Amino acid sequence: MTTATNEYPTKAYGATAPDSGVGPMEIVRRGLRHDDVLIDITHCGICHSDLHTARNDWGRTTYPIVPGHEIVGTVAAIGESVTRHEVGDRVAIGCLVDSCMECKHCDADLEQYCVEGGATGTYNSKDRRDGSPTHGGYSERIVCREEFVLKVPDNLPMAEAAPLLCAGITSYSPLKTWKIGPGSKVAVAGLGGLGHMGVKLAAAMGAEVTVLSRSESKREDAEKLGAHDFLNTSDKTAMKGKTGYFDMVLNTIPVRHDVTPYLHLLRIDGVQVLVGMIDMMPEVHTGILLGRKVLTGSGIGGLAETQEMLEFCAEHGIVPDIEVIPMHDINHAYERMEASDVKYRFVIDMESLREG
Amino acid sequence: MTTATNEYPTKAYGATAPDSGVGPMEIVRRGLRHDDVLIDITHCGICHSDLHTARNDWGRTTYPIVPGHEIVGTVAAIGESVTRHEVGDRVAIGCLVDSCMECKHCDADLEQYCVEGGATGTYNSKDRRDGSPTHGGYSERIVCREEFVLKVPDNLPMAEAAPLLCAGITSYSPLKTWKIGPGSKVAVAGLGGLGHMGVKLAAAMGAEVTVLSRSESKREDAEKLGAHDFLNTSDKTAMKGKTGYFDMVLNTIPVRHDVTPYLHLLRIDGVQVLVGMIDMMPEVHTGILLGRKVLTGSGIGGLAETQEMLEFCAEHGIVPDIEVIPMHDINHAYERMEASDVKYRFVIDMESLREG
Repeated sequence: MTTATNEYPTKAYGATAPDSGVGPMEIVRRGLRHDDVLIDITHCGICHSDLHTARNDWGRTTYPIVPGHEIVGTVAAIGESVTRHEVGDRVAIGCLVDSCMECKHCDADLEQYCVEGGATGTYNSKDRRDGSPTHGGYSERIVCREEFVLKVPDNLPMAEAAPLLCAGITSYSPLKTWKIGPGSKVAVAGLGGLGHMGVKLAAAMGAEVTVLSRSESKREDAEKLGAHDFLNTSDKTAMKGKTGYFDMVLNTIPVRHDVTPYLHLLRIDGVQVLVGMIDMMPEVHTGILLGRKVLTGSGIGGLAETQEMLEFCAEHGIVPDIEVIPMHDINHAYERMEASDVKYRFVIDMESLREG
Repeated sequence: MTTATNEYPTKAYGATAPDSGVGPMEIVRRGLRHDDVLIDITHCGICHSDLHTARNDWGRTTYPIVPGHEIVGTVAAIGESVTRHEVGDRVAIGCLVDSCMECKHCDADLEQYCVEGGATGTYNSKDRRDGSPTHGGYSERIVCREEFVLKVPDNLPMAEAAPLLCAGITSYSPLKTWKIGPGSKVAVAGLGGLGHMGVKLAAAMGAEVTVLSRSESKREDAEKLGAHDFLNTSDKTAMKGKTGYFDMVLNTIPVRHDVTPYLHLLRIDGVQVLVGMIDMMPEVHTGILLGRKVLTGSGIGGLAETQEMLEFCAEHGIVPDIEVIPMHDINHAYERMEASDVKYRFVIDMESLREG
């Protein structure tokens, strides 16, 4: 064990340029501050954002970049003032590693919307205290301020817990915000990492869940995930039959598309929540909105809500469907992800990095 | 007085073609059905929709068309089963004269969203029972099913009451839907017929009201109407200072525009309500929505809510600022309305039609 004042040389995988792919590199984790936790990472989920950031698709990447914000592991050491965690604890880190903790949003447990320069991202961000770049979970270990380290409930398996930290909370938060519960009618558009969690979570909350897809091939998948119904959005008659039917459309589609057909499916005061980063949303005819249809979005969740979600999943036995891969398969995994060839989330077994 | 089974030849003003302007014509009001009320119209407000419909701007006009859906008057006769109204009562008709009264929306006092073929519009629509065209308030009298006739409270002056039937309820309804009350921070964009009522109504509900405008010239008007603040939307620094400040932006702007700057003004879970018919809304960056900003719309209000609004206005002494004109000045009024040269609503004195 290194002492708290020393830095930790750490094996990682990252990108050095938009076209470099993701490969082995060594990074340095800071020595523990008084309120820091050192975590040995056991697993890290792979999110679409990882791929977009590695390739600089959003034009905001600072290289070298180590992606990964669906992180689980065990506590290996703690700073002297840490009270929330002990060595050996099963813990997790999501999309955030710090925030101001003082603004109105942080006070309201909405750290993801911190107004003081924004929350600090788990990667491609800058440490609030020393300005050093943050690096994500494609690595052996990570150091993080204790408040941003969550607890993994005992009965959640580690590998399956990883995707909950981004895909899970991103679907969970809007369901809670809009008070989805027994009897609610929820439609989920897009059956990927987020969407498949949306189906499971909404069903566990007691909602009647319908999967929306252009492709009839998803009907069987929808049923397996616990959806009560399937609606083929290419079938105009079927779509018309559900006009005004849903309380919520959880729209997880990660590419630019027209949101209008989903607005038509909403009851009065029903809400379409966008959770995918689709940049510019195509024009919408306001006549539809004037029928009191609500269009909004939601971004991940705060720390308290993320912990609540982990406990909800543990209590209801909900885990994502995952495919575990070794670290060195990352570039192939990205290719398959782009081809939607994964049901439904890749998770990296970080033991493969230590051995590699 | 004609008997209940006879029709009523009626002086009116209407358009016969998109470029005809609005001129005198004679129409026939049906003889009273058992549940009908005959109303001698005293005043009719002028709404932008009148102008758009007269000119077929929306491509849905059937000629000849008699506009007008902000109607007040006195009951002149009643059908044999009418119980809600008596001869001599001060009454009003808004945008609707009928609906199915049986669907889920009608049952929920949301007749404006009737799902059985839609509610019957006061003009440019078809009577549900005999298919005859409906004609609006630019006329001496109107016949309407008793449930769609509202009561004008005693202390509301008739001329001023007229614009409440469309401009008033259109602003009132979203304020109620989104629970605006004491302490709420409401911004009103667009200071016309709807917007100026939005300011007065929101202030009467106890909200802190800010008028948004590109033009500094509106600052004084805003204050006169009872707004607590004015925000010049051309002033980038001022706009930035109100980022995340408002619970609601009531957007009454009646022409196509980018709604993005108003989304930035909303707090988390704050709502921008569009009430103007602006057809296609320009593209919006979904990154803003992902900060839990809500975009929606609202269309007039149901019968019960419209009655409630009339009583709210009577109780709080709220009336629109109007300019009364004679019927034959209608085309000039349209021109001035298009030039935003009215503070804030034209109302036709229908006595001028009887005399003309």
